[in-house]
Amino acid sequence: MARKWVYLFTEGNKDMRELLGGKGANLAEMTNLGLPVPQGFTITTEACTQYYEDGRQINDEIRGQIAEYIGKMEEITGKKFASKENPLLVSVRSGARASMPGMMDTILNLGLNEEVVETLAAKSNNPRWAWDCYRRFIQMFSDVVMEVSKSEFEKLIDAKKAEKGVQNDVDLDAEDLKDLANQFKAKYKDAIGKDFPDDPKVQLIEAVKAVFRSWDNPRANVYRRDNDIPYSWGTAVNVQMMAFGNMGPTSGSGVAFTRDPATGENKFYAEVLMNAQGEDVVSGVRTPMKIEEIKKTLPEIYDELIDIANKLEDHYRDMQDMEFTIEDGKLYMLQCRNGKRTAKAALKIAHDMVNEGMIDKKQAVLSVEPRNLDTLLHGSFSKDTVKKATQVGKGLPAAPGAACGKIVFTAEEAKKQAQNGEKVVLVRRETSPEDIEGMKAAQGILTARGGMTSHAAVVARGMGACCVAGCSDIVFAEDEKSFTLGGKTYKEGDVISFDGSTGNIYDGALPVQEGAVEDDDFAAIMEWADEIRTMQVRTNADTPTDAKKARELGAQGIGLCRTEHMFFSGNRIDAFREMIVSDTKEEREAALDKILPLQQGDFEQLFEAMEGDPVTIRFLDPPLHEFVPKDEEDIEKLAKAKGKTVEQVKGIIAGLKEANPMMGHRGCRLPITYPEIAVMQTKAVIRAALNVQKKHPDWTIVPELEVPLVGIDKEMAFVKNIIVETADAELKAAGSDMKYKVGTMIEIPRAAITADEIAKEAEFFCFGTNDLTQMTFGFSRDDAGKFLDAYYDKKILENDPFAKLDQDGVGKLMKLAVKLGHETRPDISIGICGEHGGDPSSVEFCNSIGLDYVSCSPYRVPIARLAAAQAAIKQSRK
Amino acid sequence: MARKWVYLFTEGNKDMRELLGGKGANLAEMTNLGLPVPQGFTITTEACTQYYEDGRQINDEIRGQIAEYIGKMEEITGKKFASKENPLLVSVRSGARASMPGMMDTILNLGLNEEVVETLAAKSNNPRWAWDCYRRFIQMFSDVVMEVSKSEFEKLIDAKKAEKGVQNDVDLDAEDLKDLANQFKAKYKDAIGKDFPDDPKVQLIEAVKAVFRSWDNPRANVYRRDNDIPYSWGTAVNVQMMAFGNMGPTSGSGVAFTRDPATGENKFYAEVLMNAQGEDVVSGVRTPMKIEEIKKTLPEIYDELIDIANKLEDHYRDMQDMEFTIEDGKLYMLQCRNGKRTAKAALKIAHDMVNEGMIDKKQAVLSVEPRNLDTLLHGSFSKDTVKKATQVGKGLPAAPGAACGKIVFTAEEAKKQAQNGEKVVLVRRETSPEDIEGMKAAQGILTARGGMTSHAAVVARGMGACCVAGCSDIVFAEDEKSFTLGGKTYKEGDVISFDGSTGNIYDGALPVQEGAVEDDDFAAIMEWADEIRTMQVRTNADTPTDAKKARELGAQGIGLCRTEHMFFSGNRIDAFREMIVSDTKEEREAALDKILPLQQGDFEQLFEAMEGDPVTIRFLDPPLHEFVPKDEEDIEKLAKAKGKTVEQVKGIIAGLKEANPMMGHRGCRLPITYPEIAVMQTKAVIRAALNVQKKHPDWTIVPELEVPLVGIDKEMAFVKNIIVETADAELKAAGSDMKYKVGTMIEIPRAAITADEIAKEAEFFCFGTNDLTQMTFGFSRDDAGKFLDAYYDKKILENDPFAKLDQDGVGKLMKLAVKLGHETRPDISIGICGEHGGDPSSVEFCNSIGLDYVSCSPYRVPIARLAAAQAAIKQSRK
Repeated sequence: MARKWVYLFTEGNKDMRELLGGKGANLAEMTNLGLPVPQGFTITTEACTQYYEDGRQINDEIRGQIAEYIGKMEEITGKKFASKENPLLVSVRSGARASMPGMMDTILNLGLNEEVVETLAAKSNNPRWAWDCYRRFIQMFSDVVMEVSKSEFEKLIDAKKAEKGVQNDVDLDAEDLKDLANQFKAKYKDAIGKDFPDDPKVQLIEAVKAVFRSWDNPRANVYRRDNDIPYSWGTAVNVQMMAFGNMGPTSGSGVAFTRDPATGENKFYAEVLMNAQGEDVVSGVRTPMKIEEIKKTLPEIYDELIDIANKLEDHYRDMQDMEFTIEDGKLYMLQCRNGKRTAKAALKIAHDMVNEGMIDKKQAVLSVEPRNLDTLLHGSFSKDTVKKATQVGKGLPAAPGAACGKIVFTAEEAKKQAQNGEKVVLVRRETSPEDIEGMKAAQGILTARGGMTSHAAVVARGMGACCVAGCSDIVFAEDEKSFTLGGKTYKEGDVISFDGSTGNIYDGALPVQEGAVEDDDFAAIMEWADEIRTMQVRTNADTPTDAKKARELGAQGIGLCRTEHMFFSGNRIDAFREMIVSDTKEEREAALDKILPLQQGDFEQLFEAMEGDPVTIRFLDPPLHEFVPKDEEDIEKLAKAKGKTVEQVKGIIAGLKEANPMMGHRGCRLPITYPEIAVMQTKAVIRAALNVQKKHPDWTIVPELEVPLVGIDKEMAFVKNIIVETADAELKAAGSDMKYKVGTMIEIPRAAITADEIAKEAEFFCFGTNDLTQMTFGFSRDDAGKFLDAYYDKKILENDPFAKLDQDGVGKLMKLAVKLGHETRPDISIGICGEHGGDPSSVEFCNSIGLDYVSCSPYRVPIARLAAAQAAIKQSRK
Repeated sequence: MARKWVYLFTEGNKDMRELLGGKGANLAEMTNLGLPVPQGFTITTEACTQYYEDGRQINDEIRGQIAEYIGKMEEITGKKFASKENPLLVSVRSGARASMPGMMDTILNLGLNEEVVETLAAKSNNPRWAWDCYRRFIQMFSDVVMEVSKSEFEKLIDAKKAEKGVQNDVDLDAEDLKDLANQFKAKYKDAIGKDFPDDPKVQLIEAVKAVFRSWDNPRANVYRRDNDIPYSWGTAVNVQMMAFGNMGPTSGSGVAFTRDPATGENKFYAEVLMNAQGEDVVSGVRTPMKIEEIKKTLPEIYDELIDIANKLEDHYRDMQDMEFTIEDGKLYMLQCRNGKRTAKAALKIAHDMVNEGMIDKKQAVLSVEPRNLDTLLHGSFSKDTVKKATQVGKGLPAAPGAACGKIVFTAEEAKKQAQNGEKVVLVRRETSPEDIEGMKAAQGILTARGGMTSHAAVVARGMGACCVAGCSDIVFAEDEKSFTLGGKTYKEGDVISFDGSTGNIYDGALPVQEGAVEDDDFAAIMEWADEIRTMQVRTNADTPTDAKKARELGAQGIGLCRTEHMFFSGNRIDAFREMIVSDTKEEREAALDKILPLQQGDFEQLFEAMEGDPVTIRFLDPPLHEFVPKDEEDIEKLAKAKGKTVEQVKGIIAGLKEANPMMGHRGCRLPITYPEIAVMQTKAVIRAALNVQKKHPDWTIVPELEVPLVGIDKEMAFVKNIIVETADAELKAAGSDMKYKVGTMIEIPRAAITADEIAKEAEFFCFGTNDLTQMTFGFSRDDAGKFLDAYYDKKILENDPFAKLDQDGVGKLMKLAVKLGHETRPDISIGICGEHGGDPSSVEFCNSIGLDYVSCSPYRVPIARLAAAQAAIKQSRK
């Protein structure tokens, strides 16, 4: 039997999002709920996958079912494609499993041709509207389906306005638009070499193809990579009867939220643009009005919308984001979905809904996107700063955070300057999907046009970037290379600051203060997350400052202290360099003696900060060559300190050079050649722990000494032996029975494969997934950038494996290591401390393979806590 | 029950060598055969292991058993330690499972003290002999057991000779020797701080400890590493009643071989030194006489010895090497073992013994050590030559053979002088691909840096050239126009010699004896090996010359053709460089078009050489940076050819630099970024195969196209797709239905872990164990030399994993990949083409995990054939 590729809205429901996409499933659900949904059908995501498998062709079976469903739709709506009595016009919209706003293509008003437009004009008694629809359709179809640039058509419109001596589009009458439509069709034929298609069925198949194709456009690919959406999912296509928001003053298009998407306040929020189609709202070309304004003019509509909003939130048990159209005084619902929201709003909504009895704690924890917490943790301006600052304007508070930087006007420039280390802010009339990378690179985005649901606002919230949108006081110069605001002219390179939580824009540079999370909602959700999760969350902290910050953010210990990072403050590097260029063990020991008290002091502060919770200290890891002086002056200084000639020191430095330093003389290979380094570091750790233990007798300090880059059990045995001998001597001398643990990083493939042997010596494991990814793929972190773009382009990789754990390869090694480690030592503690420890999907994986903890950078600790709780909930449901 | 740590000779047999060591097992066997063996006991290898486990202590249980067995021995021999009537003297000798001649310690005449020596003097009526024994014992015990240098004692002997006005030791009389013995004891007390021990039981325990300790001495460690003997085995200790060869003219010590160990001739061969102990024979201080000379003086002894030799060879079914002592006209057998022999002798003995009906073909094949064939295939220095030579250094035995010639420092100079008929050796810090022609022209290559898989080593092995690599004692002058080694400075034109089988470097010119394999014995053994083995043996050959050589040596196909090596001959590199610095696909294609016919021509010759047997061609693998010009002149030439400025070309070259090139933009990452490279190489392979197929319609050519460095199934799919499209188009154009296969190297850990996925695309696998070892350990081949010595010293590694396959780690990945590969594609062909393909123990491992073939450099093909046969025999016995 043939597969079912097409579903009527009446055939689906909200649980079918894998097959129908989010939009399709919710259109079906709203239909089931009896809401006023223009009817239609959904072509499944599987049809999209099939399209790609068939070499970007829609096969006959799918075409057949589409044709069949057009018939059913005509029956349901009572309208007919190309009918002279009651013509059917449709919208064709993408809709993937996960929402990807603005990333894929949409075609409106499909079904129009010269005959149909005349029918519409006559029937509606509104020829201007009919012709406006037609010229819009030609323009959109040409652009989206046939890739004839929009600007070609804009030029024709400008010429027509000049000919008529008018300023605005609205001043063109029906005849003008009819003439334009004809010009457009001629332009189309000119560009494509064929007549513009008149047959709605032909138009439809081409439009469906275009939507399928748009799944693979560059901006969609980037968005998916940023949002962990697999390429394999594909998009569904929704074909829906048009409702017209542009039929006149009692028509309009809008978006609504059941709660405030910026603050989370439990207050209905909607914007509407009268006499406009949806694309006008989304594009931000005109600034919409608050829904409250139509309460007076169309009170029933207002009440109906409120009613529907309540019904939907109650039904979905989550804040809803809806699109609607008012056609000549009648309300139509075009879409609903769980609304995108700021982190602050997400926390408040989740907290409120638990208090309102709408959801339980687990649902609350699941409703907050961990990565969005980033925005909470990001910057703001202090009250004092703001008091003294010069405000030059105000826009919509589209995405929270504080931004300060040099002005740039293009996304390319933003990207370029950011790569050079400049802090820039992107200022634009409006943004479009091509601007995504520039938006990412910028400190913040400021737009002159568009509402809270404009492209800039939605995308910025998604990526946790600061955004002020729709500041209509901004006046751009014609060349768009400067603008005026608050009486001042700003050029590229001038500095401004703005606040995405208030919409305020300030002249000059304001200091940005780090994010703070002292908020009841945050505290409540985090408390619930901590109750639910089973994995511990530690932090990667190399300095006392980091450690304190992480503790504030809920870290339950230090999972990784990279001791080498301590060597760069002040003059410490001098002693370290003396150690490196030593010829003899004695010389090396003399230099190490200078370092010992400094390290010990740092370690004491780390133990203090963690208040008896575990502290893992990794021994010196990087190749020594990374520490040697590079400029002549420093080399001379070092030579003098060591009583060597400059030539000698240069010779030693040259000798340390390696062809592939990542696989060179580093990690545990250092204490194997120079055991005295491990002796010094052991002394520093144990002495520090003893001192802090003495000060805090109620704590139980159990320092964890970690050997990096082990690949052979005997490496571990050798270094452990040095550590144990040294530590035991220190403890004996102090008359202490303090416990300590010696463990290893699992970051070399061979360590994972032979974890059973290594666990005979190692009392704990911690996955160093940065190095493990590097060796497992054979990808140098420093060099992979050269070819990874080609890998994304060619769909060989969808994500950077250094950011998102490669579960199929690296993950398989991790699973094996966990299994083997537990075989030898059932109570072995196993964690992860690579960059992946703060990535939600990787945290979920770590939970699934039974890790005891994840460790991540301080600002990612709350994200990891929440992700770990979500992972625990998902795990328990399996 | 206590473990049995000690065995009488009457309690053992020849099959107990793991426990008793080779010497102990054979002493027991000879005892069982009723041969005249001075009786005693063997302390097991397990006791040695226990000694190390107990922190270099002999525990009470072992001490107890030793004491008990002294009692048993006294009973058997009728002699007693420290007896005034019939004192027992013993020898204490090491004896590991595998023979390690001269590597460990021996103590003779143990049991002597002042009282015993007087008894001996009286009973023997030979006081000079008695005192000579005593002073020898004190000297040996002090040296071996207490590490008081021999030379201290030699000084005292010299002083005594001066005092007496005599020239030779033999001119000292009993009184002189007695006086010396007393002086020796005083010297001992002076050095050690304690009296020389008089109690034979104390002496024995100390001697046993010394033998155990000598298992871990530096020369034993090096010998083991060179001969694949695990450290974990330990040595047994044999305590045997002394037989005295130094009792007078009817006494003597000797060694005998049942056949000639140099030629293999079936002719009894023995040497004897009259009135001497064994140590005098071994040390070579006096020259022994042929055994035939005592036929006249001691005919019964001669006959008895011949009789025993025949009996032993017949019993062991192998050529025997025996040690014996004649004590006052009576023959004692002290040792027998399968004799060490030259490769030539080994082949002849095996061949003869099959013809004599003594052994079968399998036994013959097993009796030849595969690695010894190296000496047959390459030149060598004779033992006598080496004995007289001055060794100035030692490096890694990177490629076998013997080289002697004038030093040159550049490849150009090597080429130039060789063309003028000079014999030169190329000495460099390290080599690079540009040096290939110079390497070919030189007699041998010596490098200061790099390991067993460094460029110099790999290339030299491939071309059958002698190479000593990584001699870190070589210190180059800054201008690289001279170097110092072993305290001497060498300039261009000075002569040195070196041995690529041992790594030894000698001052001056040593005569090289040529290798030869045109030999019936070689042919017979190889024929039998080929009958027995189940694995195919292919070769790694990059040039038609290599391929022809390998074919002569029995290669059954090409397992690896590294196409990049083809780019260095003549002007080819120019086109290749033009390709590298291209800005556009079109430019690249234009340069590739120049390379295509050259590669095709080479491939045709490879297909010709293999006569229809498989030829695997690996696509371009190394980072492009390896190929760019380095000197100004070449850069200018390239710039001119490309119409670019020198600055532009330098900029491109700089852009190609990588932090860790081994994990950078190479392998399949090249055709993923530049598909046109794979297109060109596919065309070259297919066109070449078609041409040769046409010329030889009776052959069935199935070219194998191999994608390097795959780690992700989609990489393989992407490149395979290019290959298949291109190949099919070529075949279609030619109207051919020739088959071809597309496969991959398994050399990235991720490829091994996900081999099931990769096998969906790959039609064959070939393990690239050089890279796989590199990534699995995280050891850079080029840099690991810096720390591997510390790893050997500290027993973390016993072998270079780049030379001998790491079965516990890398091997585990290989096993997994074989299993996963077969799951997906049961008939997948799997081979190995890393350097390990020619290493006998690695070949055995490959056989055990079910590989279809090994591929190695041409000169290792016979070794691999033999090793594969031995592996098959061992496998079938399991």
